[in-house]
Amino acid sequence: MDQLPTPYLSVDLDVLDRNLARMAAFTAERGAALRPHAKTHKCLQIARRQLDAGAVGLTVATVAEAEIFSGGGCTDLFIAYPLWIDQAKGARLRAVAERAAVAVGVDSAASAQALAKHAGGLVEVLVEVDCGHHRSGVQPGEAGAVALAAARAGLRVRGVFTFPGHGYSAIGAGKDVAVQEAAALRQAADAVRAAGLEVSVVSGGSTPTAWYTDTADVSEIRPGVYALNDAQQWELGSCEPADVALTATATVVSRAPGHVILDAGGKALGADRAPWNTGYGRLPDLPEARITAQSEHHTTVVFPAGTPLPEPGSRVRVVPNHVCATVNLNDELVITSRGEVVDRWAVAARGANT
Amino acid sequence: MDQLPTPYLSVDLDVLDRNLARMAAFTAERGAALRPHAKTHKCLQIARRQLDAGAVGLTVATVAEAEIFSGGGCTDLFIAYPLWIDQAKGARLRAVAERAAVAVGVDSAASAQALAKHAGGLVEVLVEVDCGHHRSGVQPGEAGAVALAAARAGLRVRGVFTFPGHGYSAIGAGKDVAVQEAAALRQAADAVRAAGLEVSVVSGGSTPTAWYTDTADVSEIRPGVYALNDAQQWELGSCEPADVALTATATVVSRAPGHVILDAGGKALGADRAPWNTGYGRLPDLPEARITAQSEHHTTVVFPAGTPLPEPGSRVRVVPNHVCATVNLNDELVITSRGEVVDRWAVAARGANT
Repeated sequence: MDQLPTPYLSVDLDVLDRNLARMAAFTAERGAALRPHAKTHKCLQIARRQLDAGAVGLTVATVAEAEIFSGGGCTDLFIAYPLWIDQAKGARLRAVAERAAVAVGVDSAASAQALAKHAGGLVEVLVEVDCGHHRSGVQPGEAGAVALAAARAGLRVRGVFTFPGHGYSAIGAGKDVAVQEAAALRQAADAVRAAGLEVSVVSGGSTPTAWYTDTADVSEIRPGVYALNDAQQWELGSCEPADVALTATATVVSRAPGHVILDAGGKALGADRAPWNTGYGRLPDLPEARITAQSEHHTTVVFPAGTPLPEPGSRVRVVPNHVCATVNLNDELVITSRGEVVDRWAVAARGANT
Repeated sequence: MDQLPTPYLSVDLDVLDRNLARMAAFTAERGAALRPHAKTHKCLQIARRQLDAGAVGLTVATVAEAEIFSGGGCTDLFIAYPLWIDQAKGARLRAVAERAAVAVGVDSAASAQALAKHAGGLVEVLVEVDCGHHRSGVQPGEAGAVALAAARAGLRVRGVFTFPGHGYSAIGAGKDVAVQEAAALRQAADAVRAAGLEVSVVSGGSTPTAWYTDTADVSEIRPGVYALNDAQQWELGSCEPADVALTATATVVSRAPGHVILDAGGKALGADRAPWNTGYGRLPDLPEARITAQSEHHTTVVFPAGTPLPEPGSRVRVVPNHVCATVNLNDELVITSRGEVVDRWAVAARGANT
């Protein structure tokens, strides 16, 4: 690994498998289904391991991701996104539906009608509801009306879903947000049933909320980041530092009193930074250091007074803030076990935005 | 273009060429050299147009970018980065130097010695100095010592350079930062001459500072963003909205009172946001709108009370905040002229981080 050009991403296979097994056991014990979000890793080999560990299928964000994961052998996909389907995207979605069971999110009568027009009969839908994140999704009480519109357009309604993204709003928010999630999903499912439709899946989940899921009201969860983890989960407390499977390796290229510059910047790591993050990622081997600034190819690492700085030319590992963004910037993951390279996996769905 | 799947990036060729011509004329009139930073566009066709418009060569950030642009026919490259050259990177750098004149940044005796060991005799160096951005680079008065160490290691010293990145620190900062840049470069050049070495190039520049360059002290500038422009330059006042050549086109996928959701998020646009940005980009056709939130595949656009919201399913253009990050997330640029698609250009150096 000393010969690999920096920056590069590596995944500790043993940590990855432990993360996958832990979430699979958590959901299995509670009788919930696990449908991991593949946007985190975009990697066929990790998807396969998730399915082998008991996942019922995968979640993806785009038709392009559905194309790649269905092409790679996944036969059960939920596009957890309020797609707007036109003729061209409809043709692609129909092609995916020929090789996999496909469900799609809808959050309006209009989007359901567009979907029905271009891919009706081939895909099921889940109605997206807003449980407090205030992005897409209708209010829970409106889920029945959207479900009915979808059914009237000829679509089979599978159930309801939400993304409790406000679990990322503050350290420790996950527990309360999981309560909101369960309440919103319960209300939405009731609204769909009141409209005379069955609800077979009630889908929620995210990595910060997953461990608090109320499986009395939520039948399926869709965490993504848990597979690899990152500095956001570390700093949120959703994982331990030892649970971080993916790191970037960078070289110290410059040093000045109190700080060094690494050759991994936003173009390799991503530029996400939550207000509660201590910086643009963490250094697992130097946890007292702080990444105070980031440019496209520079990361500035500051050390407490008196701490010895790493030598110029030495290599340093970085835990990125948001691994979903990081993976999408890179073509390949170097897979390691016990410090040795054991494989290289392509980021097959990198850039699959459409 | 209505058939292209969203999100996609398009470049208005006429605006691009006008931007290239304006900066080329500005530098030519002042007798300065223009060496545009190709990290912005990562595109061979744009590099060719810059060289045809009079640029003396290109600036790049990594050996990988140098490989791609030299492979594409550029014969004069400056890697404006304090590279740490080991054996493997040295072999790649030597291969680039067989087909192009190559200069590299150094900011320590140690990095100069590593460079000399693995690629000595084949590349020239410029000493990087810090003009106030406080990233890499030595203090201007120390440039002579670094230059002397490089010369003693057997490297030919071309001159000094700086990146006035603190021109991005606040709206209107560019003018004052250009003054600091010129002063730092003058002091650095004097220090190198005092060490008994010639200084043939004094290199500075960035898009926010370029128009204020003091060409009495700065012989070459390296702006990058000016070719395409973005919402940061728009909001900094470094360009007019009409000078933005690159836009992303997205579809309205969801609508709620007061806001819509677009299907272009951080994975297509990038996640950069300066403290003074009004949001995560701008809408050129709806300038009163604000992008208040961004996820990986969602952009939340808020409209002033009473403003009609775009229809679900309609398409909206977005000017990303930081075009260098945006281009690096995409494989292709759709080239337009007068509203028609005239070509498609590959982002040849996408992901070229090493």
